[in-house]
Amino acid sequence: MARKIIKKRGKKVGAAPGTLVHIGEKSSMGANIRVIDYDQEHLTDTRIHAPDMCGSYRDSHSVSWINIDGVHQTEVIENLGKSFGLHPLVMEDILNTDQRPKVESYEDYLYIVIKMLLYDEVRHETRTEQVSLILGRHFVLSFQEFSGDVFEGVRERLRSGRRIRFMGTDYLAYALLDAIVDHYFILLEKFGDQVEILEEELIADPTPATLAKIHHFKREMLLLRKAVWPLREVLSSLTREENPQISAETRLFLRDVYDHTIHVIDTVETLRDLLAGMLDIYLSSISNRMNEIMKVLTIMATIFIPLTFIAGVYGMNFEHMPELAWPWAYPAVLLLMLGVAGGLLVFFRRKNWL
Amino acid sequence: MARKIIKKRGKKVGAAPGTLVHIGEKSSMGANIRVIDYDQEHLTDTRIHAPDMCGSYRDSHSVSWINIDGVHQTEVIENLGKSFGLHPLVMEDILNTDQRPKVESYEDYLYIVIKMLLYDEVRHETRTEQVSLILGRHFVLSFQEFSGDVFEGVRERLRSGRRIRFMGTDYLAYALLDAIVDHYFILLEKFGDQVEILEEELIADPTPATLAKIHHFKREMLLLRKAVWPLREVLSSLTREENPQISAETRLFLRDVYDHTIHVIDTVETLRDLLAGMLDIYLSSISNRMNEIMKVLTIMATIFIPLTFIAGVYGMNFEHMPELAWPWAYPAVLLLMLGVAGGLLVFFRRKNWL
Amino acid sequence: MARKIIKKRGKKVGAAPGTLVHIGEKSSMGANIRVIDYDQEHLTDTRIHAPDMCGSYRDSHSVSWINIDGVHQTEVIENLGKSFGLHPLVMEDILNTDQRPKVESYEDYLYIVIKMLLYDEVRHETRTEQVSLILGRHFVLSFQEFSGDVFEGVRERLRSGRRIRFMGTDYLAYALLDAIVDHYFILLEKFGDQVEILEEELIADPTPATLAKIHHFKREMLLLRKAVWPLREVLSSLTREENPQISAETRLFLRDVYDHTIHVIDTVETLRDLLAGMLDIYLSSISNRMNEIMKVLTIMATIFIPLTFIAGVYGMNFEHMPELAWPWAYPAVLLLMLGVAGGLLVFFRRKNWL
Amino acid sequence: MARKIIKKRGKKVGAAPGTLVHIGEKSSMGANIRVIDYDQEHLTDTRIHAPDMCGSYRDSHSVSWINIDGVHQTEVIENLGKSFGLHPLVMEDILNTDQRPKVESYEDYLYIVIKMLLYDEVRHETRTEQVSLILGRHFVLSFQEFSGDVFEGVRERLRSGRRIRFMGTDYLAYALLDAIVDHYFILLEKFGDQVEILEEELIADPTPATLAKIHHFKREMLLLRKAVWPLREVLSSLTREENPQISAETRLFLRDVYDHTIHVIDTVETLRDLLAGMLDIYLSSISNRMNEIMKVLTIMATIFIPLTFIAGVYGMNFEHMPELAWPWAYPAVLLLMLGVAGGLLVFFRRKNWL
Amino acid sequence: MARKIIKKRGKKVGAAPGTLVHIGEKSSMGANIRVIDYDQEHLTDTRIHAPDMCGSYRDSHSVSWINIDGVHQTEVIENLGKSFGLHPLVMEDILNTDQRPKVESYEDYLYIVIKMLLYDEVRHETRTEQVSLILGRHFVLSFQEFSGDVFEGVRERLRSGRRIRFMGTDYLAYALLDAIVDHYFILLEKFGDQVEILEEELIADPTPATLAKIHHFKREMLLLRKAVWPLREVLSSLTREENPQISAETRLFLRDVYDHTIHVIDTVETLRDLLAGMLDIYLSSISNRMNEIMKVLTIMATIFIPLTFIAGVYGMNFEHMPELAWPWAYPAVLLLMLGVAGGLLVFFRRKNWL
Repeated sequence: MARKIIKKRGKKVGAAPGTLVHIGEKSSMGANIRVIDYDQEHLTDTRIHAPDMCGSYRDSHSVSWINIDGVHQTEVIENLGKSFGLHPLVMEDILNTDQRPKVESYEDYLYIVIKMLLYDEVRHETRTEQVSLILGRHFVLSFQEFSGDVFEGVRERLRSGRRIRFMGTDYLAYALLDAIVDHYFILLEKFGDQVEILEEELIADPTPATLAKIHHFKREMLLLRKAVWPLREVLSSLTREENPQISAETRLFLRDVYDHTIHVIDTVETLRDLLAGMLDIYLSSISNRMNEIMKVLTIMATIFIPLTFIAGVYGMNFEHMPELAWPWAYPAVLLLMLGVAGGLLVFFRRKNWL
Repeated sequence: MARKIIKKRGKKVGAAPGTLVHIGEKSSMGANIRVIDYDQEHLTDTRIHAPDMCGSYRDSHSVSWINIDGVHQTEVIENLGKSFGLHPLVMEDILNTDQRPKVESYEDYLYIVIKMLLYDEVRHETRTEQVSLILGRHFVLSFQEFSGDVFEGVRERLRSGRRIRFMGTDYLAYALLDAIVDHYFILLEKFGDQVEILEEELIADPTPATLAKIHHFKREMLLLRKAVWPLREVLSSLTREENPQISAETRLFLRDVYDHTIHVIDTVETLRDLLAGMLDIYLSSISNRMNEIMKVLTIMATIFIPLTFIAGVYGMNFEHMPELAWPWAYPAVLLLMLGVAGGLLVFFRRKNWL
Repeated sequence: MARKIIKKRGKKVGAAPGTLVHIGEKSSMGANIRVIDYDQEHLTDTRIHAPDMCGSYRDSHSVSWINIDGVHQTEVIENLGKSFGLHPLVMEDILNTDQRPKVESYEDYLYIVIKMLLYDEVRHETRTEQVSLILGRHFVLSFQEFSGDVFEGVRERLRSGRRIRFMGTDYLAYALLDAIVDHYFILLEKFGDQVEILEEELIADPTPATLAKIHHFKREMLLLRKAVWPLREVLSSLTREENPQISAETRLFLRDVYDHTIHVIDTVETLRDLLAGMLDIYLSSISNRMNEIMKVLTIMATIFIPLTFIAGVYGMNFEHMPELAWPWAYPAVLLLMLGVAGGLLVFFRRKNWL
Repeated sequence: MARKIIKKRGKKVGAAPGTLVHIGEKSSMGANIRVIDYDQEHLTDTRIHAPDMCGSYRDSHSVSWINIDGVHQTEVIENLGKSFGLHPLVMEDILNTDQRPKVESYEDYLYIVIKMLLYDEVRHETRTEQVSLILGRHFVLSFQEFSGDVFEGVRERLRSGRRIRFMGTDYLAYALLDAIVDHYFILLEKFGDQVEILEEELIADPTPATLAKIHHFKREMLLLRKAVWPLREVLSSLTREENPQISAETRLFLRDVYDHTIHVIDTVETLRDLLAGMLDIYLSSISNRMNEIMKVLTIMATIFIPLTFIAGVYGMNFEHMPELAWPWAYPAVLLLMLGVAGGLLVFFRRKNWL
Repeated sequence: MARKIIKKRGKKVGAAPGTLVHIGEKSSMGANIRVIDYDQEHLTDTRIHAPDMCGSYRDSHSVSWINIDGVHQTEVIENLGKSFGLHPLVMEDILNTDQRPKVESYEDYLYIVIKMLLYDEVRHETRTEQVSLILGRHFVLSFQEFSGDVFEGVRERLRSGRRIRFMGTDYLAYALLDAIVDHYFILLEKFGDQVEILEEELIADPTPATLAKIHHFKREMLLLRKAVWPLREVLSSLTREENPQISAETRLFLRDVYDHTIHVIDTVETLRDLLAGMLDIYLSSISNRMNEIMKVLTIMATIFIPLTFIAGVYGMNFEHMPELAWPWAYPAVLLLMLGVAGGLLVFFRRKNWL
């Protein structure tokens, strides 16, 4: 599964900066552009196919949210980027889906990279998708790797004409970030449930499979951490006052997302600590069980070894063994054996080994 | 027990900010509002049921402490919030009982979240309850999850007309925070006693149950830590000079609570270190006991294995075994056996294994 | 021994700040007040019993060092505190002997808490005693829990009229702090010697008692650390320029104490690292010894098991076993046994197990 | 392989600063100087052998990139250094190939040290080569230890007249740094693949060789870390505004390299965590397998030990053993044996050991 | 060896600051004072015995380097200190050879403490010697514990009239620091070589002696670390601009020493990591070897235990055992035994245990 750690960069290495090469999973789907344009009174929701049709949204005074699914179609991204005046490095980073979450400030827009995390119910693991946001004065661009996202709630609120319709692009960007971070809790709940089940399994009947699962979850936490830690810095810098794109009011809301991020980090760290504790329990319960087995062997062996020896002595064929002829010798030997066994049992009980 | 780590958020995810959804344990009890209104000369203590009756306390010049038990009744909270002009995000956070301790400054009030920790005597574990404080100019709102709290001492001091009656809302808020943090020491004493008992058990007779208890306490410490670490930051920011709601004199008292918090953190860390050391002792004492058992097996087996072999040799049925006919052969073999056993015992003693 | 970690707070929890309740070991001795009052020319050394007689020292221009042994007599402390105008929180903290080392700045005095550490020769452990210092313009108050301290050298220097007589209260406070911190080195030397002895024991003959001692010292280091780490901060803040009570010249001397504190911390950390390494050595030497024992068992068993089997075969009672009648069968079987044993020994030596 | 950790310094120790002594692997190859001199319209690519011919490039207004392969030829470096007015300490550091990545600011140039990392396909390990860059106003000097580098892409872009031709020396330096850091990803991909293969091996059939490989990769990560961590600081200080040699536009590009460096560090740390987890899995799978083997021994021994004892009893030669004569004694004993064996098997199954 | 950790302080504790008591190893040698006085044109190299003769060097405009070997002669140090106007605390610290590396700024001189580390070839351990430097305007005092140092190269450069003769006292102090830090590399090379040898031993044939060596080196690294970590701070503060005693040019050179210190720290940490990894390898290779031995026992025992049982059955003396009389019974039983043994061998091979 190390495959997840580093994405192949292919021909990209050594190329000029700004060279537009897609890094990530290819997809056969075409790029899918959807524009939601709104102000307090009107809202239009359009799907368009020619990226050059988007340019008009750049300066219109209504808020335009242009969402693009599928960043593997480099020409589409390139056209869009040019229409909105994006820096070549930004366009390059949008295509490279192996980015670390970050925020970069350009003259008239902010560039935000964040990881959308989805839970794969079948393999109990995290699916990561990179979302790039461009927050301009009159537009928000959002680039996703695949179709399917966690923004349905935001669209719903837009359509229903709630507060979000009275606010600017910064609030829209906040709403998108909030939706993504809120979804992390879903993920953590799922992991929490799995870990809980695992804990019960650990107490009831730990097997090597339990160990494998512990390691699986430790690994997932590692990946989650990689996605969430840098986010803290991103949101902390968004809530600072230096960005003119973000109003004081929206900053309050971003501070809320920041708190959620800290909470997510806390929870990830707690789960990591729990898993580490579970590993300890696993190892000691395995060695406990082994000890149990060894104890039975030891006791059996220690009791029967001298008895077998005694039997062996009287199984010798010497001609001159006077005891053999004594009439009470056999029961006496049996009694001796019982005595030895009993004595050893008492010794063991005294030592508290039984 | 992973249940404790993440609380279910239900339909909350994806909703608009300010959507009032209660997150936490449901309770059947109605919301219980108690208002203590006082100045230097008068004090009234009322229970009210209609939250809209509280609005008048907002601007009255006496100090009003409005305590609400049971945050699951969202309409009550909503009404109250509106009466006192709380920001929607604050109201949302009051209902979400899975918050991290924090302090947030709004225009005319401070919002403080803190965890009240109670010790469950039966299960030897911590019960966590979220307390939200709103510190305004003339009022303090305190929101608790359940009835029953650690504020009885504060109420007593209010009634008996001590210094607290001469001070403002900031001192009341301090008194509440102080009561909560002071109660942490009770908790730590209980845990300290339990750990002490566990230490004695560990030395006297460690069993797998001892290990389970060590892990239980490690886990409790993890949860305590999660509640207490952020508190440090909360109190440190309250003692800084930037908050106009807090007078210089009260800041001195808050510095005292800050010291207590540091002390609690220190103690939690020390208990963690102790528990880690106890885990080491447990593991090595278990493996020590196993070694003791194995040593007995080894010595028994090593002594009797050659003796049994000798007996086996003379139990063979060859026709031509001249020794069998010798009259002194049997005692000679017995002596040989004694010699072998004695030699091995001397060898073991030399090696210091006996 | 967890008793040491948290001191019982009794009725203290929930009380108003400034409530004077003694927390710590009770003692039957009365409070013992000793005043050394000096300037460059004169020195008087008095024991007084009525705390209200001390008030006159507050503003006299000579330097007055008022030492109180026994903080459990709350009225004495209360009287003194009022005479010198101490803040209620300070008086409360003086009585609570479970404080973290700290320095607090009040309008006309500094309040310093520090731990005096004494070595209990019998139990090889640290005895902690809290010392509170009040550094005023013309007086230094020092509160100790018990009689007996490390200040004899300071008193000697005061009597012999050395530099200390020409300096102010800040230098006296420095001298007291220096005496306490210097005494830490005595303690560390003692621990160093004990650890050295332990190391020799560990190499010569490690027993479970060795393990217990390692853990004992690890624990002591934990307690030492708890006392010394915060001290660093205390001294660092005393050497900063913000305190008007401390002259530039004395600051140079305090910097020296600061260096000693860092040195103590370094040494504690080094001892901790050494003890951790010793634990590793202990565990591996124990498992090494076990392995030695197991190897002997293994070799004995592996050699004799096939031999005993051969003997068993010829001990069977079948009527038709032609070998039994052969005249050279017996010596041949003995030779076979020798051969098998020899072959196994060669195999073991080859494998380097012998 | 500790050889890699510290390079021999030979006569260097104790010499005056600025003494030019090469530290590193000697090479028989001559120093190889290649000058690429360009502006927007022209580009010349020359190889020269006399270092004193380079001086003219110092002040010419075109951008001159002078690359030197082989720093073991001290006179060549000395001559070059003098032509370009380098500080003696800089020249000394260029020759000492055991430097830590760093950036140093001199009056009219920046001195940057960075490690070029190449993957040795045969031994699966990292080959480190030190690259020193001197960034002047009109020239960039790059010193490499050996011929062969990762700059081919940069040369290609220079020749094809792209953006790089329109920018200054700072952009060229950026391009070189970018090429080196980009190459780290190649390295990490290779290591990622190897670790992935190792993970499969670990699950399928862990052997001591697996352990050796885990330790090999842990070691490689240690070396990588040593090269990459300081780079973070280097790039962070290059992107700060204080360096007049670097234009605001180039700083944007350097920020991009900085992001890559953080990404590389993240990945190295993740690989380290993965390897630590793999070590745990290895150790527990080895002990698991051992336990399996021991369990079989235990079960076999525990079942047969009492049976063999019973057989031994009836192999005794007492004259008065009435059972021996009973006609059904033999089958009865066989049944008894079966019963004992069966009972033990049931006991084992109950205990869940089978 | 804990002796190394804390030096005995004897009567020192509790004494007044500035009391001159030597702490460290006593030596019978007299104090040895050597003065090298130079400017650009002249150099004199004198050994003097009366410390009061040194006073004249204090203000002479030539640079005077006064080196004192043997700080145990307290009167010599006291006299010197008075001649050069040293603060009592400085003199005290010079005599106390158990200092932490530090730099202290006094009005007209800097006081620097640093550890000179020498490699004891016989015991493969570090010998530490404290060097105190006083950097004045016209003089540098250097105090060493014993004769013999690493400054020969500096003296040589002074005599040969190189750059050092044209620079001030700050450059001389730099040269001394540089010589000491450069010597650390010699030490690390030696340790690196030893660790390399140890690694080979670890792979070839690990014995308990290997473990002892690993622990020895871990311990040495601990001591090294204690000497080198604080040095980082010392040099970093020397390179800051606040010290008027140090010229901008010399600061450049000190920055170079600072880089070397960082490099030394890096290397120490890397060696520590390597040694930790070697400990893991040692432990797992020891347990691997034990497992090998146990496997042989297990296989032998598991195969022969049932065979011996079968032999035991037919060694019983029942009168009615019809098989005993069958002519083919003996070979049949032998065949049965072969079959059982073969079956077990096949089972073991299947399980991959053979």
